[in-house]
Amino acid sequence: MSWEEKVRRVTPYVAGEQPQKKNIIKLNTNECPYPPAPGVARLAAEMDWEALRLYPDPNTSVLVNALAAYYGVKPSQVFVGVGSDDVLSLAFMTFFNGNQPILFPDVTYSFYDVWAELYRIPYKTCALDENWHIRPEDYRQPNGGVIFPNPNAPTGLLESLGTVEEIIRANQDAVVIVDEAYVDFGGVSALPLVEKYDNLLVVQTFSKSRAMAGLRIGFCIGSEKLIGYLNDVKFSFNSYTMNLPSQILGAEAVRDDAWFRETTAKIITTRERVKKELKELGFSFPDSRANFIFAAHESIPAEQIFRALRQADIYVRYWNKPRISEYMRITVGTDEEMDRLLDFLKEYVNSL
Amino acid sequence: MSWEEKVRRVTPYVAGEQPQKKNIIKLNTNECPYPPAPGVARLAAEMDWEALRLYPDPNTSVLVNALAAYYGVKPSQVFVGVGSDDVLSLAFMTFFNGNQPILFPDVTYSFYDVWAELYRIPYKTCALDENWHIRPEDYRQPNGGVIFPNPNAPTGLLESLGTVEEIIRANQDAVVIVDEAYVDFGGVSALPLVEKYDNLLVVQTFSKSRAMAGLRIGFCIGSEKLIGYLNDVKFSFNSYTMNLPSQILGAEAVRDDAWFRETTAKIITTRERVKKELKELGFSFPDSRANFIFAAHESIPAEQIFRALRQADIYVRYWNKPRISEYMRITVGTDEEMDRLLDFLKEYVNSL
Repeated sequence: MSWEEKVRRVTPYVAGEQPQKKNIIKLNTNECPYPPAPGVARLAAEMDWEALRLYPDPNTSVLVNALAAYYGVKPSQVFVGVGSDDVLSLAFMTFFNGNQPILFPDVTYSFYDVWAELYRIPYKTCALDENWHIRPEDYRQPNGGVIFPNPNAPTGLLESLGTVEEIIRANQDAVVIVDEAYVDFGGVSALPLVEKYDNLLVVQTFSKSRAMAGLRIGFCIGSEKLIGYLNDVKFSFNSYTMNLPSQILGAEAVRDDAWFRETTAKIITTRERVKKELKELGFSFPDSRANFIFAAHESIPAEQIFRALRQADIYVRYWNKPRISEYMRITVGTDEEMDRLLDFLKEYVNSL
Repeated sequence: MSWEEKVRRVTPYVAGEQPQKKNIIKLNTNECPYPPAPGVARLAAEMDWEALRLYPDPNTSVLVNALAAYYGVKPSQVFVGVGSDDVLSLAFMTFFNGNQPILFPDVTYSFYDVWAELYRIPYKTCALDENWHIRPEDYRQPNGGVIFPNPNAPTGLLESLGTVEEIIRANQDAVVIVDEAYVDFGGVSALPLVEKYDNLLVVQTFSKSRAMAGLRIGFCIGSEKLIGYLNDVKFSFNSYTMNLPSQILGAEAVRDDAWFRETTAKIITTRERVKKELKELGFSFPDSRANFIFAAHESIPAEQIFRALRQADIYVRYWNKPRISEYMRITVGTDEEMDRLLDFLKEYVNSL
């Protein structure tokens, strides 16, 4: 017998390309086109790098306290992780332990089924309606938990707080996770509902609106009970996950609210302008409230445009998957980047 | 029914205390008493913090390449993770998928049984002999994999490369993991055996000898096959785990070999001196090749000494567990720190 028979075999996930080439226009992984708060570089320069010899605070207090103060909750209602993928994965492991399938939309973030399979959690997807909206009635069936992004990915569509609350209200016997990775670009957060529903977990990230994908910070807010369970599971198998730079620099990003508001406002303005221009070029898309636009052209196949853009060193995201193969997902970059994209598309669309 | 019935319940691990108090002598979590390589602070000062807006390189190439060059292996033989706990946990998940129990010593790193339970891997512990040594014959029974630290924790005892190879040779149908967290303090690494045995995985960390516990970096080296399987599992559920500062600053720590050798040599010298002085005070201990000493006093119970030290703001580690309750684990600090410890112990031992 070979040792290889004891190895776990998997199908690796294919993430958005991270080309190492310079001078490309990178609109494929929903990063923020603007730098993080200026205090981040300043604090990094002042940091006591000798302190790296010590283990970081396992409770990540400096960051938890900054987030609690910012969102007006108790520190015991905040949990931070190494990116929201880390938070979500741990939440799946902690909260989705029932025997019934968990529910999430058929078109959604591509890691939900991956984590469900990893932790052997049964799951069932609920089809979005023909306008890409969640049908709240789908979430009235018996289940082991509910998760959906709001705004959804890769559509960018926002569900109203009324719809979100309807789903939570109908699911008091399971944990409901609202994944708000893109909420800061004009979305409406479910955070105010956390005081009302002790089974609601709201997950957010520093990778988009806070321009810190490179630091790996995600967090969630919920009832003290929920956060207590998450901490128990986390500390049961790994105490030290978030490193010192992330804790200190992340806290600074939270404190600079003016920068945060200015950055997100710029992205929203650019997004709305690009929507108009794309429409004129024959594109249609759900009305995104995220930092990307999920667009299909009236006559040219998305895969063809995707490849042409790539040739021109403009990277967007394309999935050859059922229901979404006619769309490409375009991250909202700076105005200059979007102008180069639009110029290319104008020429390309008219040349065919 | 309540949502709480679907929650995973665990017994949280109790890590070594991380007191936030200043001016204590902290000899309880095996951190390095000296700062990381000076280039780390210099590189941090030069770093382009605006680049934090982008996702980090998912392949952590800069760090993998630095490690491959240092240890004389191919980059495809190196895998890095967020601390060696992250690497070990992923290795358990990837390689220990058989039906037979995995084997590890009864007195060893306290996370092995935790990960085994987390991933529902059957396991069996093999008792160390009366001198705290591994009995290689115990590892000749059918098993789903083997793991042991060398030097072992919390004893600090080193097994010869002959013993290590004997265990590997007897286990060609399972993966053998040698956890070398403490190997740089006078141990002998199994790395040269990696070319000979494609089922051997050697795990190391930056948290001890490289003075970077605060950055969270661990790594392992093995055959290209083993590392390929690890990467497949890792990328199947989380692409971006190691942040940008860890990748860049970690690589710099590897490049400064002179600093590394100097730091570890100082710790070894201090350890050997402290051994002599502890012996004179009536302590006995396995002959540690790690950056800690696992010591028992001839007449005073370890727990009593542990509490007295704590009162004096000197933190060491104590476990009230079978077989080891008469010992405390003392990290080797600077000469000044160890003098304060020894001064206290002299007075304390003589006062009773």
